[in-house]
Amino acid sequence: MKVAKFGGSSVASAEQIRKVAAIISEDHDRKIVVVSAPGKRDKNDSKVTDLLIELGELSLATGEAESELQAVLERYRSIAEELKIDGDIITLIETDLRERLATNRHNPGVFMDSIKASGEDNNAKLIAAYLKSTGLNATYLNPKDAGLLVSDEPGNAQVLPEAYDQLIKLRDHEGVIVFPGFFGYSPEGTLVTFPRGGSDITGAILAAGIQAELYENFTDVDSVYAANPNVVNEPVEIKRMTYREMRELSYAGFSVFHDEALIPAFRKGIPVCVKNTNNPSTSGTMIIAEREYFFNPVIGIAADDGFSTIYVRKYLMNREVGFGRRLLQILEDEGLSYEHIPSGIDDTSVILREHQLTDEMQERIIDRIKNELHADDVYIEKDFSMVMIVGEGMHNTVGVSARATAALARAHVNIEMINQGSSEVSLVLGVHQEDADRAVQALYEEFFGASDGTIQ
Amino acid sequence: MKVAKFGGSSVASAEQIRKVAAIISEDHDRKIVVVSAPGKRDKNDSKVTDLLIELGELSLATGEAESELQAVLERYRSIAEELKIDGDIITLIETDLRERLATNRHNPGVFMDSIKASGEDNNAKLIAAYLKSTGLNATYLNPKDAGLLVSDEPGNAQVLPEAYDQLIKLRDHEGVIVFPGFFGYSPEGTLVTFPRGGSDITGAILAAGIQAELYENFTDVDSVYAANPNVVNEPVEIKRMTYREMRELSYAGFSVFHDEALIPAFRKGIPVCVKNTNNPSTSGTMIIAEREYFFNPVIGIAADDGFSTIYVRKYLMNREVGFGRRLLQILEDEGLSYEHIPSGIDDTSVILREHQLTDEMQERIIDRIKNELHADDVYIEKDFSMVMIVGEGMHNTVGVSARATAALARAHVNIEMINQGSSEVSLVLGVHQEDADRAVQALYEEFFGASDGTIQ
Repeated sequence: MKVAKFGGSSVASAEQIRKVAAIISEDHDRKIVVVSAPGKRDKNDSKVTDLLIELGELSLATGEAESELQAVLERYRSIAEELKIDGDIITLIETDLRERLATNRHNPGVFMDSIKASGEDNNAKLIAAYLKSTGLNATYLNPKDAGLLVSDEPGNAQVLPEAYDQLIKLRDHEGVIVFPGFFGYSPEGTLVTFPRGGSDITGAILAAGIQAELYENFTDVDSVYAANPNVVNEPVEIKRMTYREMRELSYAGFSVFHDEALIPAFRKGIPVCVKNTNNPSTSGTMIIAEREYFFNPVIGIAADDGFSTIYVRKYLMNREVGFGRRLLQILEDEGLSYEHIPSGIDDTSVILREHQLTDEMQERIIDRIKNELHADDVYIEKDFSMVMIVGEGMHNTVGVSARATAALARAHVNIEMINQGSSEVSLVLGVHQEDADRAVQALYEEFFGASDGTIQ
Repeated sequence: MKVAKFGGSSVASAEQIRKVAAIISEDHDRKIVVVSAPGKRDKNDSKVTDLLIELGELSLATGEAESELQAVLERYRSIAEELKIDGDIITLIETDLRERLATNRHNPGVFMDSIKASGEDNNAKLIAAYLKSTGLNATYLNPKDAGLLVSDEPGNAQVLPEAYDQLIKLRDHEGVIVFPGFFGYSPEGTLVTFPRGGSDITGAILAAGIQAELYENFTDVDSVYAANPNVVNEPVEIKRMTYREMRELSYAGFSVFHDEALIPAFRKGIPVCVKNTNNPSTSGTMIIAEREYFFNPVIGIAADDGFSTIYVRKYLMNREVGFGRRLLQILEDEGLSYEHIPSGIDDTSVILREHQLTDEMQERIIDRIKNELHADDVYIEKDFSMVMIVGEGMHNTVGVSARATAALARAHVNIEMINQGSSEVSLVLGVHQEDADRAVQALYEEFFGASDGTIQ
């Protein structure tokens, strides 16, 4: 039994949905199909989810958004017409959307979650109808009916353990289930979405729930690559990698797979395969629990920008029990999460994602650190990138950090921060944002320059 | 006007004290002489401070320690006799010691501080008497009379800012002042000691207090070396280094200079010179505010052992605002200070000095992290060394970390942790304790292998 998830570009048009149908018909083990909202058909196109956000926000603000509603319906209509699906489906989608627009207007968080989630939900209904029209025994299933219970955090839901007691029953379902990604329901019955990109999460939860033999994640690339193809020319394809490697890479900027999506699959030991809807005969990338890493201690190089550093210096800081805790308390009071805390004897830095920091917050933080912690010096620096080298073999292979730092030295990239020591599978190098691409290219050349195009 | 501090080995015997007298007579700018307690005369000898600790502890425990008292007096007596100082000095020291032994017995902290500090105090009296006997205008000065006010933390005193208002008056003193190192007095008049090795601190405070042109720190080596001579064969001599470099190196294991001692000198911009009592004509090591670092980005390699790592793993840790703060709170509740906190996505480690950790404390910490923070995995690993590469030029020189990590790779030393990013002058590499010497040797060879014996 397999769960197959199709991303936005795989279900963006009638042509793409025909490929999905072919993929499903080809393997009868593909019992659960998780779908995203229609994505972009070409570079200049809009994703349905973005249209829905526009629609929802305008409707809340002005009470009127008819042309935005029609733009959404038009996307479904063009697909339905080309696929020659019964016209009733569009009426059904329109009714559903108008109902959502009329409900929960007093609660913008819940309202927007419901509008956004309609992209996946209605696309699942449409795809189920199409599959049925091709003669397949396919049914749309709503997450509420399936028992996909999640925590009540709009836009940030987490699956609740009791959901799995319900989901296991889907094993007994006859035929193919078409399931919308991206959302579940709270125990009180409210629709709540996962973080964006959350259809991957839905797929992983269902795969774990039915104890699938495989979770297939269909996207628009042949595999996961060892580096970002926009930065490195024709990077090698990764054939096999571990959950931990994928999770670290996606956290550090690999967009192919949502970084939290792997956890349910990992916990139940479900293998994950990343495949290409447009080229389904290629084997893709298998994500599994363990791999041989003797020949490839490093599997990928990722980079993410937009980091700031809060630098704090105080003489005899290291003698002051509680200094670090009080520093983190100040950040916590502002609701900030941090990434790394490199520390010297008399100084410490906190590295965090800068989108969290408003100007006002920065002033408050600096003032509090100066006044409450009596720091000698405090300042905030911006525009850092975190470059991450990931690989299961790193921890036990002497010399990975040597090769990495030498490669950056050759490329004249100054290393502002190094963090190694807690994660066994990654090494983080902080560099100035303008050096990030050059850093990734140099590291790629060092670890993959001699490769023949794929790594096992 | 100069302050000259003489360490334990420089005042261990009559022969050594004659050298001290010659050094003082030679330069009339040496107006304040800070002395330690008599140190070891040879490898198998005892330091007077250790004899005093034995004496104090036994006296407190049993009320009787006459032979221990005689052992201390015997050290002073042998010096006084050989130097032909008036016999009254020994009577004076004996009276002083018996008085200390009879006072503050209800308060062991204050009692022990007073007993320990007598080593420096009585040695200062003895040396002042000797200098006077040679015809020098020398006076013993008690820290209370000088106004050396410190915080009331037994064994861990810090100078109070108001002390400097008094100490400046010492500039007007006629002749040479002989001043005992290691202790001051609280505003309430209680004797309080600095951390051990604190005579360096006294010297630095006095140098700052009288705005000396130079603080000379006389010891038993010709200079500060770029690495521990017990680990590296004939390491190069450092001729000039900055305060920050010295402070980081001494924190990381260089025993030549107490790591907190530099701060008063640094704050007032007093240059510090480390010189050899046994070879006073060599220039020694100058410690100053700035140096040219173009040719020597790295100035020294230190290593210190006895570190433990508390490893904590929890899925989605990085999403949990406050996790790090709550982790540090648990350590703070146990009174623990930490050194580094390397962190991954789902895991973090806290590195701390393991002498702080009792077995019971470890159990409590692990339990609390599991139960209160709901961590998936927690364990403590021991026997790590922190190897520190120090140099003003490190931050702006591309490739220092590359050379360091490559050197360790060649020496087959696995790097367990790297911390770079907060301090601009150091890079910390965590290694297993058994690899530490090999790591220092490899790094020394990399950064100093081609040197001709000294670095500027």
